[in-house]
Order: sequence, then structure tokens, then C-alpha cells
Amino acid sequence: MELREELYEYGKKAKEASLKLTVASTKEKNLALRKIAENLRKNIKDIEKENEKDIVAGKERGLSKAMLDRLLLTSDRIESMASGVEKIATLTDPVGEILTGWTTEDGIKIRKVRVPIGVIAMIYESRPNVTADASALALKSGNAIILRGGKEAINSNKIIAKIIKESLDEVGLPSDSINLVQTIDREAVKILTQMVDYIDVIIPRGGSGLIKAVTENAKVPVIYHDKGLCHTYVDEMADIEMAKKICFNAKVQRPGVCNAMETMLVNKNIAEEFLPQMAEEFKKAGVELRGCKQTKQILKDIKLAEEKDWDTEYLDLILSIKMVDSVDEAITHINKHGSKHSEAIVTKDYESANKFLNGIDASTVYVNASTRFTDGAMFGFGAEIGISTNKLHARGPVALAELTTYKYIVEGNGQIR
Amino acid sequence: MELREELYEYGKKAKEASLKLTVASTKEKNLALRKIAENLRKNIKDIEKENEKDIVAGKERGLSKAMLDRLLLTSDRIESMASGVEKIATLTDPVGEILTGWTTEDGIKIRKVRVPIGVIAMIYESRPNVTADASALALKSGNAIILRGGKEAINSNKIIAKIIKESLDEVGLPSDSINLVQTIDREAVKILTQMVDYIDVIIPRGGSGLIKAVTENAKVPVIYHDKGLCHTYVDEMADIEMAKKICFNAKVQRPGVCNAMETMLVNKNIAEEFLPQMAEEFKKAGVELRGCKQTKQILKDIKLAEEKDWDTEYLDLILSIKMVDSVDEAITHINKHGSKHSEAIVTKDYESANKFLNGIDASTVYVNASTRFTDGAMFGFGAEIGISTNKLHARGPVALAELTTYKYIVEGNGQIR
Repeated sequence: MELREELYEYGKKAKEASLKLTVASTKEKNLALRKIAENLRKNIKDIEKENEKDIVAGKERGLSKAMLDRLLLTSDRIESMASGVEKIATLTDPVGEILTGWTTEDGIKIRKVRVPIGVIAMIYESRPNVTADASALALKSGNAIILRGGKEAINSNKIIAKIIKESLDEVGLPSDSINLVQTIDREAVKILTQMVDYIDVIIPRGGSGLIKAVTENAKVPVIYHDKGLCHTYVDEMADIEMAKKICFNAKVQRPGVCNAMETMLVNKNIAEEFLPQMAEEFKKAGVELRGCKQTKQILKDIKLAEEKDWDTEYLDLILSIKMVDSVDEAITHINKHGSKHSEAIVTKDYESANKFLNGIDASTVYVNASTRFTDGAMFGFGAEIGISTNKLHARGPVALAELTTYKYIVEGNGQIR
Repeated sequence: MELREELYEYGKKAKEASLKLTVASTKEKNLALRKIAENLRKNIKDIEKENEKDIVAGKERGLSKAMLDRLLLTSDRIESMASGVEKIATLTDPVGEILTGWTTEDGIKIRKVRVPIGVIAMIYESRPNVTADASALALKSGNAIILRGGKEAINSNKIIAKIIKESLDEVGLPSDSINLVQTIDREAVKILTQMVDYIDVIIPRGGSGLIKAVTENAKVPVIYHDKGLCHTYVDEMADIEMAKKICFNAKVQRPGVCNAMETMLVNKNIAEEFLPQMAEEFKKAGVELRGCKQTKQILKDIKLAEEKDWDTEYLDLILSIKMVDSVDEAITHINKHGSKHSEAIVTKDYESANKFLNGIDASTVYVNASTRFTDGAMFGFGAEIGISTNKLHARGPVALAELTTYKYIVEGNGQIR
């Protein structure tokens, strides 16, 4: 009951703050962001001290090296957190953008204007920098935020949230714009997902366990990233050198991320030439290959792919390969097994390219480029809070604009129906 | 288990059909719409016959006169259903619209393009014309649809769906684009809301019981209309004649709809002059008034409003009236009690107008016009499937554009990261 009260208290405070943030000027919001950056830098020592508590506790609890590294805040990392916040101050404010406008037959003037969503709840895991990043993006887009970070980062999160709240106070914006859940209890996630009167959208950021916990019973709308099972289809008419470069990049450059390639589809008419060369390069990079029967006729010494391989997001140096008869077969396979994230074709053929671009149901479809480009920064959005594999509201990179909604502003001079 | 199988069968078929509809040309879709209209007209006699079965059954079950009227299909109504479908053929196809586009530093070209959502499930009550309207809007926007109408209209819905499916067949579009749930079972709603692999969005259209049944446990995203608790604030600087005209229209012209006014807020400095004149007109129209204490000091013979009146959507000739000190108090009251649907201010004052337009959180905010204009047709959208009081994806009238999402189309010439 105590936790419940804490969360509803944040909900109420955040909602009130959001009404003030909605009408805050870009200048005020940027001033706050710069103040936050300044105060993060001023307090590097204190942040490191609090972070050290988390590290010690994490070691005691036997966290893995990778987990501890994700948790760690060095002075360099705090500096880059501060400069990240500062950078958000330089981005264009999405709020107030007129998306479209017209005058109706009745002579009323309608403008469709971008406005903040209201209150965002962010549920995340071990990286404490998310506390600063998410707060800054929410603030710039005029939204209040409720932050629920991982328990392993609680001390780091607490001091970062405190610094942000104090910074808001200093510049005269409501400190209730940012609310970090202090009580450590798994139940918090469940309660937050039910708070429809106070939270407008929940953004979970983490592994599939977290996503499931959030989406399972959520009454509040959720924007999330399911998984990234991305394909690259090497067409019969592909430039082989380009295909090799793109597939290698999509698989090897950073295999642990959602926009990396997990399955490579190869047209049968180019397979004999392409596959041995490509396999050679993957071998050098230590990539484990798993092929369909036809692929194995060319690459004899690789593993045979099982049915479940086509549905597996490895996030590792493993690649499944399937030979297909045509671009149509590739499209059918991808629409069946893909995660609607990012899908690419490599081809010189105009018709195949267009067939692929139109026929694939995914947030981002590529011709002749690596799927690794699906990213807020690469798209030129400056900063993102994640990639959405949902189809409603936000699809692909979730940046400032995706943290807004719109309203219609209607001006008349006495019109009635 | 039988029902479950039926629904999943529709899910699979609709999903497959949606992939074909996605790439269907505007010409093909318009041809189908015109064919549907033609066949509805050709089959007026048969539709009337099937509708008669529903009417007879409805009378036996003791449906109210209003319910029976909603159910009734006369030849005029069927004609207007057909011409409604035909009209959708004349609207601009939202699919393929380029929302924005740019070239990144890496030289990749990005276009953000409108695409269909995929599969829509429509859950509605007694009006059989929704079967045709919703199918036509889904078809034009390139979406497949699963229709679950009320049991009282099942015979009418069946014949309309059959005519639509046959029309699609005739023009060579997949007849599985339209799927009417045949089995009458309340459980269907529950199952549909869980079919995340086959349904992309659910749109319920009906009373609060239906909305609750759909949203309660939905895993599939829902676009819905909660309620319409709309206010009009008569500012100190209002043109009194204009305020009277607008408030009268918003309350009286059609009290049973969601964009009608339920609470009138009046600035204390104009109340003495405005309220007696306004009350006089409302009295003539038979409107029951319920006022706050201060209002009652001016309008002595009206009822005293209770706390719950501020949260009640009457949908009837009843109006609650509250006196406020300022536009700020009006904004606070509306943001607390409103349903984020449509809110209006009547004023000649520039600053008050802007404060109101910026400070109110609702799909549509008005200055000097009746809230009754929140409507797809009035906005010039041609046709709508409803009004959304949600803040994500679609807000306000849900027309063709709101039945689409977007994807990023990225063209490169070998770019890698």
C-alpha cells in the first residue's frame, strides 16, 4: 500500500507539472537543460561516490562484468551524460509545430499543432545515464516523467534525479517534472501500467523480460521495442561487392544491437558466386553460420539451420542463411519471420527494389544500405529514447517528435451548426 | 474453442489480405468501392428482407423504439449507405503520402511514407450501416478488417458483409479483406483483444459498457472514444450575443452526441448580465439547469449542482453551470473534469483566448465557435470512423489518415556504419 501511495503521489505531481511544462517556452526549457548539464558537471565527485555504492553492492550480489560495466559512471561518462543533455538544448523544440492548417467551408480556421503528450513513465534497467537522457528528452518535449530504474542503479539514479530536480527549481520550472521511484519493489511496474488517469504513455527500455512485464497487463498505452530480427536480402541483381560490404557491416559491426542482421536471404541465382566469398569473410570475423538445405549444398561445412533459427534474434556473431527463389519469396519470408524493425535489399534492379520497399511491413526498409542505420542519431534526430517496433503512434526511432501528440486549435467568429 | 478457431482463422486471412491491400493501387480500391455501392443498390430488396428478420427478432426481445430505429434499414437508408461508400471513393488516398524526406550526412535518402496499419478490428453495436462504413474506410486506407457487430443486427450485417466480399471478388481484390464474425458470443470481444499477432488495432464504437469490455484487458492497441464531457467558457470579455448563440447551439442542437456541451463556465464579471438572458433561452428549449452556489444567487429557481455533476456526461437537455473568477480557473476546472474531447472559450480578448487554447489539454480547443464542429465531416475529412479521446496515434476525428501509420524508406548506394 505504501508503494502504491508513493506512485500515485508521483502521478498526481507529474500531471500537475505537465500542465505547466506544456506552456513553458523553449527558452525556459533550454535554460533548464543547460543548468542540468552544469550541475551534473559540478557534482561529478558526488555522483561517483553514489555510483561506487551501487558498484560495491553489485559486486556483492555477484553481477557479471558486463553488468557492472553498464552500471559504472566514470568522470568521462558523467561528462558525456552532461554534454548529451546540453546537446538536447540545441535541438529544435517539436512543441508548437503546425503540422497542417486550413479553413473550412464554415469559415472556421483549424490548425493541427504539436503538443506534449503529458506524463511519460520510463521503465529501464541498469544504465544510470538513462535517468539523465530520458529526463532531458521528456523536458525538451514538454512532458513530465516518472522514472523507474533498476534496483542495482538506485543510488546513482537518486543523485542524478536530485540534481535534475534542483536544476529545475533553480530556473523556475516545476521540480515535479521529474519523479524517480525510490522504493525498490517489482510491484511498481505493475502499478504504473494501471495508472491511466495519471500516465499517458509507458516506455520500457530493456530486455524481453522487462518488456513482457510491462506489456502483459498494461492499461496505459506502451511504446516499446519488441525485438530486432532484421534481414538482408541479396538479390539476383545485387552488386556482389556492395552486398558483401553491407551484409558484413550489418552482422559484424555491432552484433548485440537490435538493428544488426540476424538472417541473410540469398537469391538462388547469385548464391554460387556470392555465398563462398561472403562465408569466407564471416569466417574471418568468427561468425557462426547456419544455413538452409540449399545453402548447405554450397557451404558444406556450416550447421544446418533449424526451423526456430528463422525466428531467433541471436544478438551475437551467429547468422542464419536461407536461399530464396525470388524477391517475392524473400518478402514473404520477412513478413512472416521479421520483427517489423529494419529490412534491407541489395540490388541494382529497379523493380525488385520497389517491390521490396513496398511489400515489406517494417519500420524501416532499405535498398543498398546497412540496417545498422536505423537509429535516431543516424537519421539526424539528434537523440532518441529507443526504437519502436509498434505500428501505432511511433514507429522506428523514438525522438523528440515522437514524444509529442497534437491537438486541433479551432478559431471562429461565432460559428454554430 | 470453436469461436476461438473462427476468430484466429479470420485473423490469419485478414493478415494475408492486408499484405495484398497494402500494395493495391488507389484505382483498384476505388473500383472496389464503386462496385460495393452498385451491389448494395442492386440488393436493396434482399437487404431489407434480412433486416426484417432482425427487426422481428428485436421486437420479440422487446428492444426499445430507439433501438429498433437504429436497427432499421429502409431503402432510403440503404441508398445513403451506398452513396456513403461511393463518396469514400472520391476522397484522397492517404497511402503513399510522403510526410517528410531528407538526405543524411551519410548520403542515404530517407522518406517517411504513409502506409496502411494492417488489420483493424471493429467492434460495434446495433447500427448495421457501420458494417459498410467501416469496411469502406478500411479498404480505402489499405487495411483489412475484422467486423464484430451487435447480435441484434446479425442478419443485416451478414448480408452486407457478403455483398462487400463478393464485390471485392468481382474486381480482383482479396475478399478476405473483410471478415464478419458470424458466431454470436460475448467471448469474441475478449479473444479479439488478445490477438496481437493478427490484429494491429481495435476500434470499439458504442456505449461505455462496450468500451470498458474492450479496453479492460486489451493486449492489442485500442483507439477509442471515452466520453464527451465538453465545456464552454464564457469569458468576461465575451460578446454576449455570440456567447448565447454558441452555448445554445452546443447544448441544444443535438444533446445526445459527444461534442455537445455538458458544463458551461461563466466569468463572474459577466454573469449578472449573461446568465439571466441565457437561462431564458435554455428554459424555452426545455433545458434543465444545475448551477453552483454563485450561479444560484443569480438564477434562483434552478437546481443546485452536486459535485458529481461536474463529471457527468448527460447526453440530454441538462446543463451544469459554474461561475469562475478567471480564465485560469476555467482552465483548471476543464483540465480536471473534461474528457479531453472539445473545449471552447467565447471571448474578444486576445490574451485570454491564447491562454485557453494553449492551456487546455483536449483533442480540439475552440475560440468563438461551437464545440459541435468536432466531426470528420465538419473538419472536411469527408468521413470518419469516430472521435478519439486518446492522446497517442489518433486524437480527435479518426478519418482515413488516422487509419494509417508510416514507414521509413531508406535508399543508399552501399552505405555502411
